[in-house]
Amino acid sequence: MGTTVTVWNEFVHEREDDDATAVYPDGIHRTIADALDERGFDTRTATLDEPEHGLTEDVLDETDVLVWWGHTAHETVDDSVVERVADRVLGGMGLLVLHSASLSKVFRSLLGTTGTLRWREADERERLWVTDPGHEIAAGVEDFIELAEAEMYGEPFDVPTPDSVVFTSWFEGGEVFRSGCCWRRGKGRVFFFRPGHETHPIYHDPTIQRVLANAAEWATPAVEDRSTPTLRNVDPCERIEGYSSSSESE
Amino acid sequence: MGTTVTVWNEFVHEREDDDATAVYPDGIHRTIADALDERGFDTRTATLDEPEHGLTEDVLDETDVLVWWGHTAHETVDDSVVERVADRVLGGMGLLVLHSASLSKVFRSLLGTTGTLRWREADERERLWVTDPGHEIAAGVEDFIELAEAEMYGEPFDVPTPDSVVFTSWFEGGEVFRSGCCWRRGKGRVFFFRPGHETHPIYHDPTIQRVLANAAEWATPAVEDRSTPTLRNVDPCERIEGYSSSSESE
Amino acid sequence: MGTTVTVWNEFVHEREDDDATAVYPDGIHRTIADALDERGFDTRTATLDEPEHGLTEDVLDETDVLVWWGHTAHETVDDSVVERVADRVLGGMGLLVLHSASLSKVFRSLLGTTGTLRWREADERERLWVTDPGHEIAAGVEDFIELAEAEMYGEPFDVPTPDSVVFTSWFEGGEVFRSGCCWRRGKGRVFFFRPGHETHPIYHDPTIQRVLANAAEWATPAVEDRSTPTLRNVDPCERIEGYSSSSESE
Amino acid sequence: MGTTVTVWNEFVHEREDDDATAVYPDGIHRTIADALDERGFDTRTATLDEPEHGLTEDVLDETDVLVWWGHTAHETVDDSVVERVADRVLGGMGLLVLHSASLSKVFRSLLGTTGTLRWREADERERLWVTDPGHEIAAGVEDFIELAEAEMYGEPFDVPTPDSVVFTSWFEGGEVFRSGCCWRRGKGRVFFFRPGHETHPIYHDPTIQRVLANAAEWATPAVEDRSTPTLRNVDPCERIEGYSSSSESE
Repeated sequence: MGTTVTVWNEFVHEREDDDATAVYPDGIHRTIADALDERGFDTRTATLDEPEHGLTEDVLDETDVLVWWGHTAHETVDDSVVERVADRVLGGMGLLVLHSASLSKVFRSLLGTTGTLRWREADERERLWVTDPGHEIAAGVEDFIELAEAEMYGEPFDVPTPDSVVFTSWFEGGEVFRSGCCWRRGKGRVFFFRPGHETHPIYHDPTIQRVLANAAEWATPAVEDRSTPTLRNVDPCERIEGYSSSSESE
Repeated sequence: MGTTVTVWNEFVHEREDDDATAVYPDGIHRTIADALDERGFDTRTATLDEPEHGLTEDVLDETDVLVWWGHTAHETVDDSVVERVADRVLGGMGLLVLHSASLSKVFRSLLGTTGTLRWREADERERLWVTDPGHEIAAGVEDFIELAEAEMYGEPFDVPTPDSVVFTSWFEGGEVFRSGCCWRRGKGRVFFFRPGHETHPIYHDPTIQRVLANAAEWATPAVEDRSTPTLRNVDPCERIEGYSSSSESE
Repeated sequence: MGTTVTVWNEFVHEREDDDATAVYPDGIHRTIADALDERGFDTRTATLDEPEHGLTEDVLDETDVLVWWGHTAHETVDDSVVERVADRVLGGMGLLVLHSASLSKVFRSLLGTTGTLRWREADERERLWVTDPGHEIAAGVEDFIELAEAEMYGEPFDVPTPDSVVFTSWFEGGEVFRSGCCWRRGKGRVFFFRPGHETHPIYHDPTIQRVLANAAEWATPAVEDRSTPTLRNVDPCERIEGYSSSSESE
Repeated sequence: MGTTVTVWNEFVHEREDDDATAVYPDGIHRTIADALDERGFDTRTATLDEPEHGLTEDVLDETDVLVWWGHTAHETVDDSVVERVADRVLGGMGLLVLHSASLSKVFRSLLGTTGTLRWREADERERLWVTDPGHEIAAGVEDFIELAEAEMYGEPFDVPTPDSVVFTSWFEGGEVFRSGCCWRRGKGRVFFFRPGHETHPIYHDPTIQRVLANAAEWATPAVEDRSTPTLRNVDPCERIEGYSSSSESE
């Protein structure tokens, strides 16, 4: 396959909160990286407390798709790293944004919106309906994915209209949510996937893992040139009456 | 009509560059504000050198649509004002972004992209074709708008796919450009309109003025509530087995 | 306001089915037309059993927005009337498609999809969440509209990705649905609105009526020229080396 | 690769018109099929004069992507074949629509619009700019594709707003055109590609062939289930107060 995925995690809850440790003893990033590794991706991980949050230029040079999980430490992420990641996405790197990372700086800066929503922790039932059955991210999923206990996210979700809403959630408590959303920015692709609270074993679910793998495949850069878009002063292709470009005049 | 438009201009070229002064002696903002005023809008202006760039909370409280012209001083605009304007757009305020303001902080932060493009100053002919003939921003425009002398902007234009491309430009030198683009962010609407170099009398053109008026009408907030989207912890609408919300349990 | 709305109804259930007659004694079209009339629209009605289904060229000449309700008699609608209506939409006429009319010939021909969905009649609770809070069709609606008893429509809904999903429904039985969807075709605008079974008094609900009025306002043609798009052989705007157009050569 | 492409051609001009015969002696379908074959696709061809136009259920069963070229004989194509092809697209089959096939019944029925445009035959220069540089259909293409002599197609092009406009054309005579457009319908993908008049050797151009191969790859079905969307009466997922479904009550 040849796609390299870097799984980034703030990795705070799993070291400080017993409930999270019990579910993800080595961190959410480890569980996701293992799941993608098993499905044929080359994977690495990076966390908040590493130098440059583990997202140096060298690491990003070798990253085709970046997975982002954050919740409690969004504001701790350095702006220069945020900018670096966003630039890479514009140049073609894929980005999978998970759960509470709808409020991350990276996601907000690429979409231009707040990523805010309604929420509730009530261990309630969620059913993610496939609302774009022809989309590759839904491949292998039946009519819906059911999660026995989930945190609720409810509409309105403050994001630009997605190019596709692959999943739409029903919640026991009465709300709905666009839970799988695709956008493109520059040459890159962004997928937001709602499930995944730190105290629910959702990333251990094989169907959820399949969706993550589908999304990583979808977000793999489609063209070779990964340069960030730039401003360019250009000579004309056609002759313009009365004009000599600098290069022509030499 | 009741729509209040604030026309913002960095107002640098027209005070420092004779060619610009000749075309816009009182500044581009004055020409545009007069044109909108004649077409029934309540207008005011604001410029970079005013306190808070003239865009205080009070001013924005009374602004339905903000017009933004900038070119040489993008980096001088204070980040707190940029954030304030972007928040207002998410809350419903309309935003018209003109010409070189594709590189402004406000536009880039709302779209998440660089706004970069090809460019050339060769006083060449431009023809803006109507590519969405049913759109209200094109009302009153024939098949195309022709400009005898224009700066060239060429594709690729690094912006997210617009909801509508109302105008697409042909340039004498051989390029094309999406010159009239609509997006929505939060509850607000954003229109980018390409024409308008500081040394070309383009904003004096009645058809261009008509388009600006159409766009201001289109961008007028559609709902009354102008609050910025927020995160909300909510009680369920339906009974959840085994769950008592905090408010219910009291 | 000056917008003329024609409300079309197949008008079968209300004359044959006691439950429907009890709720809409004069037909669904009458209830909707009255509601729009009260809100300032000029209204008329048309039904299946009139000559040309009441949708002659003359009637359509005077129609800005057409409302379409059908369920049991889709296949009885004459293809020439379907084509006539679709042509008018491409020329700028607005179209509001209600409930089971997702399967109507007019809707299917304008969208190119089947309009199929899951369904169930179980008199269950529906909650239509506003998923595009800045959209004019949601003006005046709080967070959601709740209907005590409704027929269920569930995803996947076979339609092209809407430009906006103004409402998304939650159903008591566990499904979700995109219940308020906007598209544009040619110069015209199409809004699908899910609520409205013939045996539920949904069109008597003032909030539902408000949404219909908002939608009629939104769908009002934005430009004056209502001609259907046509193929045109044209002379060049610019001189082409070695080419003389027929008109130039005469 | 495993993708099977069927190239359909009305195959009229190349048998009746010397200029067309000179450029495509075995028909446009043969040239395109050979180009795709060389790039790793399994290919077959079909033409108007074969029984069922060569597009039987059996042929379509084995077709992942259908290429469609037509010009002078659109109205001769049988409606039942049009419906069959459109159904297959909704079920997931990819469709590449070339040049004058913007007026074909298949394209019009899937998009819901007329596909009309401005046109002119003046052997003028065309430059197709890449306007979505991150899209896989543009892979391997530099800034633009230049064609020395082309028929002109000009805006407005009566189609729904594309999901992506991969190419936008500049014409010597002064027009612009959205020349590479993507849409999705049901589970299938549709790409329109403008170049390709029967008397210009455009399909012999390796860059054009590369785009066609990219598009065939892009349009390959993304999910296994190729059934056409259908209406389904379903039992609830959740218990509804006071309701027993037929299957539950047995």
